[in-house]
Amino acid sequence: MDAIRAAAEKARKSSYSLSSIPLDVRNAALESIALALESNSEKITEANAKDMKAAEEMKLPQALIKRLKYSQDKISESVTSIRSIMQQEDVIGKVLSKTELDEGLILDKVSCPIGVIGVVFESRPDALVQISCLCLKSGNAVLLKGGSEAKNTNLILAELIQKAIISVDERFDGTVQLLSTREEFQSLLKHDDLIDLIIPRGSNQLVRSIMESTRIPVMGHAAGICHTYVDKDADLKMAAKVCFDAKVQYPAVCNATETLLIHSDIAEKFLPVIAEEYGKAGVEMRGDERVRKIVEMSAASENDWSEEYNDLVISIKIVDSLREAIDHINRYSSHHTDAIITSSEAAAEEFMDDVDSSSTMWNTSTRFADGYRYGLGAEVGISTNKTHARGPVGLEGLTIYKYKLRGKGQTVAEYSGKDGRKYTHRKLL
Amino acid sequence: MDAIRAAAEKARKSSYSLSSIPLDVRNAALESIALALESNSEKITEANAKDMKAAEEMKLPQALIKRLKYSQDKISESVTSIRSIMQQEDVIGKVLSKTELDEGLILDKVSCPIGVIGVVFESRPDALVQISCLCLKSGNAVLLKGGSEAKNTNLILAELIQKAIISVDERFDGTVQLLSTREEFQSLLKHDDLIDLIIPRGSNQLVRSIMESTRIPVMGHAAGICHTYVDKDADLKMAAKVCFDAKVQYPAVCNATETLLIHSDIAEKFLPVIAEEYGKAGVEMRGDERVRKIVEMSAASENDWSEEYNDLVISIKIVDSLREAIDHINRYSSHHTDAIITSSEAAAEEFMDDVDSSSTMWNTSTRFADGYRYGLGAEVGISTNKTHARGPVGLEGLTIYKYKLRGKGQTVAEYSGKDGRKYTHRKLL
Repeated sequence: MDAIRAAAEKARKSSYSLSSIPLDVRNAALESIALALESNSEKITEANAKDMKAAEEMKLPQALIKRLKYSQDKISESVTSIRSIMQQEDVIGKVLSKTELDEGLILDKVSCPIGVIGVVFESRPDALVQISCLCLKSGNAVLLKGGSEAKNTNLILAELIQKAIISVDERFDGTVQLLSTREEFQSLLKHDDLIDLIIPRGSNQLVRSIMESTRIPVMGHAAGICHTYVDKDADLKMAAKVCFDAKVQYPAVCNATETLLIHSDIAEKFLPVIAEEYGKAGVEMRGDERVRKIVEMSAASENDWSEEYNDLVISIKIVDSLREAIDHINRYSSHHTDAIITSSEAAAEEFMDDVDSSSTMWNTSTRFADGYRYGLGAEVGISTNKTHARGPVGLEGLTIYKYKLRGKGQTVAEYSGKDGRKYTHRKLL
Repeated sequence: MDAIRAAAEKARKSSYSLSSIPLDVRNAALESIALALESNSEKITEANAKDMKAAEEMKLPQALIKRLKYSQDKISESVTSIRSIMQQEDVIGKVLSKTELDEGLILDKVSCPIGVIGVVFESRPDALVQISCLCLKSGNAVLLKGGSEAKNTNLILAELIQKAIISVDERFDGTVQLLSTREEFQSLLKHDDLIDLIIPRGSNQLVRSIMESTRIPVMGHAAGICHTYVDKDADLKMAAKVCFDAKVQYPAVCNATETLLIHSDIAEKFLPVIAEEYGKAGVEMRGDERVRKIVEMSAASENDWSEEYNDLVISIKIVDSLREAIDHINRYSSHHTDAIITSSEAAAEEFMDDVDSSSTMWNTSTRFADGYRYGLGAEVGISTNKTHARGPVGLEGLTIYKYKLRGKGQTVAEYSGKDGRKYTHRKLL
């Protein structure tokens, strides 16, 4: 048996005891991690300095080097985040429903951990801490693979976390494990009998390549092509403010708006206003033919409707109806987040019902789609999956449920045939 | 574009209007199907007779031919089942949670259909009716592929259903579509941009081959290797009754017990009793060495612990502790359904917590794991997935959720920086 399968089996074994480790012990393990980070912050920053130096020498992009940095401040932020995870209520062991099948035959549907989760993430070492803590709190074992550029930082973080949690309870041995190479993670993807879920946090390319090479369910999103639609009944001042925020406030992220749709009735009035705002902020605009008749800009090609710019670039299109806007979005959106600006409640409800995205918004910015802003606390990522968890995913998305049936010796035979006992199916919760 | 992609696009298009079709219209479509089945029952049985004749001529197994039969009685059962689906409460549009992010910025988490579901099923034509109706009620479009042996029956059923629902509302055009060949279904598995979920109902082989050939999430179970563990503190009379039911009542199904684990403290007393019962019912027993010292039977090999007999065969093993039983089950079980028989509540709770299966049971028969018995109404199948839906799956498993955020023009920029507005994150529901 290879080392990776051994690691996965160890994780699986650990996961089997995790579900019955009480909340206070899981929280004690989290506190132990927080203390370990605090008292070893120098060691951590030293390891991080090595990674930073190597990254500079390899002339990696500055944006990547910036994300790689794990300073005293960032360590403090991680500690604060761990303590906020400790404060959150327990997501496992919740009775989700209770049904009496017959007198003395009671069925509970109870939340429980998913089991073993494989996570691959790029650059940011704080992701390692956050994901480990979310998994621990929700009773899951985790196998982590970070970017090779952060290997020294990740190594010491994983070691500290392992020691910290095992010192609280030996059953945490195997709960958090670090894989060091990409080949190891690739080999992990084969063990669908031991791994229950893969969460990739990184580039579209990474997510797609993982989806193609495993039978294990993958939770996440490949692209973030978000739309804002300005309806004929929009308050145009509000529209300008929200459209500006949606594109300009932080263009490099998945919930920034990439395409602006404008109703033809208000296009002549609205386009010059928003174009001026975008122009001042240095946004490159690409319009369809009708847009370019109102404001001069470069032409949008068919490809522009399905491109995630992640930059100060926006494509703009004029539509003649709410339905046309919805159809365009359902065709080109990555089903992440799409917004409507309108004073018409009917239009807003139709839009939010019929746009098939993980978040739909009315009179506000697509940028709000985020676990922290949604009040979920920390997040493992944003999912555009249509099964399990969708949208920003916090602790709850790391759980599933099981049924527990408690009886007094009943048999199915007693309930069979015309004279058999009848089920009561009484909803108790 | 090939015909299959065209069908999938039609389904996708239909799914976009389905989520806003009100409950009474979806229920009217279900009633329309029920009436169509009743008034065309002769045509249906005639088509079925053709399939039965062909199956007899091809000398298909009698068990398959039996399942293929779709008689007047079975049609009536389908109609009853449709009317019971109509009675069930709506699973879409439910507000699952509501959070105030700030004054006038309200986040709803709302249940909605998954979208487009591909279902492949074998032999039983009533599965076509049941699955179509569950999908319709839950607002999903469905692409169906039945067994080739039922092609005439499936064809007329699909035609009747299509006509019945389109006559109620034209937006149902594309909601239910039938694929005729296995190649068509294989080709469907490629369109992961249009299909959200695959549900295979059939042999292990079918399920596994589908899982291997698609990136679309697959919901279902490959095997049903269920255990019953008789603890040292079991009421042995109850244990004998339940173990008999779990194996003998209907051995051909996935929730029948395949392995019996017995605590060594009570083995000498219990084994002879249950062996006699099993013997009378013609059950072939295969025991480990310690079992065979108490009762003579053939020897269980290592393979027996992971075999789904689906027949009057059972493997029996003696264990020395509750923990050994749990470990054996977590290693060999297909994570479908496992039961403990004991008078000790502590042992039962530990077992139900730590056995990692979709259903765990105390003092009752594994045979209860079933959508009808659990009070879910009709079921699309039983899932051993660790994500999305687990255990018997009814209407709820065909839904996901989306977030809807309603604002008054708020921007993320206002909430940024030290002087930014603060989120309230007040739980309203």
